[in-house]
Amino acid sequence: MASSVIESEVFLAFSTYATIVILKMMLMSPMTAYFRFTRKSFANQEDTGMAKTPEERKKMLVGNPDVERVRRCHLNDLENIIPFVVIGLLYTLTGPDLSTALLHFRVFVGSRLFHTVAYVLPLPQPSRALAWMSGMVVTFSMAYRVLSAAHL
Amino acid sequence: MASSVIESEVFLAFSTYATIVILKMMLMSPMTAYFRFTRKSFANQEDTGMAKTPEERKKMLVGNPDVERVRRCHLNDLENIIPFVVIGLLYTLTGPDLSTALLHFRVFVGSRLFHTVAYVLPLPQPSRALAWMSGMVVTFSMAYRVLSAAHL
Amino acid sequence: MASSVIESEVFLAFSTYATIVILKMMLMSPMTAYFRFTRKSFANQEDTGMAKTPEERKKMLVGNPDVERVRRCHLNDLENIIPFVVIGLLYTLTGPDLSTALLHFRVFVGSRLFHTVAYVLPLPQPSRALAWMSGMVVTFSMAYRVLSAAHL
Repeated sequence: MASSVIESEVFLAFSTYATIVILKMMLMSPMTAYFRFTRKSFANQEDTGMAKTPEERKKMLVGNPDVERVRRCHLNDLENIIPFVVIGLLYTLTGPDLSTALLHFRVFVGSRLFHTVAYVLPLPQPSRALAWMSGMVVTFSMAYRVLSAAHL
Repeated sequence: MASSVIESEVFLAFSTYATIVILKMMLMSPMTAYFRFTRKSFANQEDTGMAKTPEERKKMLVGNPDVERVRRCHLNDLENIIPFVVIGLLYTLTGPDLSTALLHFRVFVGSRLFHTVAYVLPLPQPSRALAWMSGMVVTFSMAYRVLSAAHL
Repeated sequence: MASSVIESEVFLAFSTYATIVILKMMLMSPMTAYFRFTRKSFANQEDTGMAKTPEERKKMLVGNPDVERVRRCHLNDLENIIPFVVIGLLYTLTGPDLSTALLHFRVFVGSRLFHTVAYVLPLPQPSRALAWMSGMVVTFSMAYRVLSAAHL
């Protein structure tokens, strides 16, 4: 049964969607770097090597709203995608139907892709709020199944 | 053996406690939203749609100590609960005694519930420090078993 | 096969390296505490109990660049080490060669140890950038294998 779980189609689907959404999260790092370089706004003294004068260097260490926006988006990813991955793995091991599981995984991944677009552009609210909420509902739904299958 | 691990009582217990403590962590997001709305303190221009005047909008984009407190608590959860989940899963797969495992899981979950109460109210120190330390000790104890079972 | 996966040498190696790198990440918390106490810079009113006068207390609630540096390093760990652990687990379950897997795990753990040193001292750039990039490449390489093995 365990081998059938780890080799099951649900597990393969989970592997794929979890990897996709984690890769999406990791792309926030280069995106932050992109905004730091184009907005010339850095957090560390040693990152401002391209400054020509001390005044320019000082200016480069001031915060920038675009950089902060991407960083908030990245932190929101950590707060939402990691719970999805953890609870999603435990959910997968409870042996759900493939179609039900795929519905959960696809809605979650779609909601987070849309969340990033809505946060970075930004789109008017409640786009971002709805994207965030859809992801939460998916994770809560999977957590419900995990808790139903278990006993303290 | 693998199937006996994944279907074992220790694994079911881990599933349950990991899910509970991850759900607790996820509840920090609505709690942040609650404080943002009651304190009228937002991070994004597009979240201040209910402002009637530009001055009111500007005021809404100023930080608030209660909001920042909940956000620090959320970040502390990420820093502590995720290591517990990862090391706890590996620990579970080493096949520990059920009673020893339950002791680890229950102390950790209890320490994090108390940590949140101590951080948000807030309770006087060293309540929060002790709660944080108990959780760390549990995770270190599980990590010790994982490393003892393994070989580089 | 599943049991051979969970009991395999690759899995034992993954367990060990994942635990080591998570422990390294957890050590950022005591390091933050150390800098908070030596720099006398705290985030919460209730943490400033050793202040003798209200003026001293107020001073203790001002940010400090060394503390912020360690906190950024910790957040960078969360952003990079957790993706490694998640994708590394899925990668391990695809049954890679032991030597290939060890190469991935060792380069990643080495890159993050060096990243912490480069961030906290700090070393001149591009030390930190190269350390960060090596870790990203390892995780992307493992993600590539996970996605190749799977099908949507």
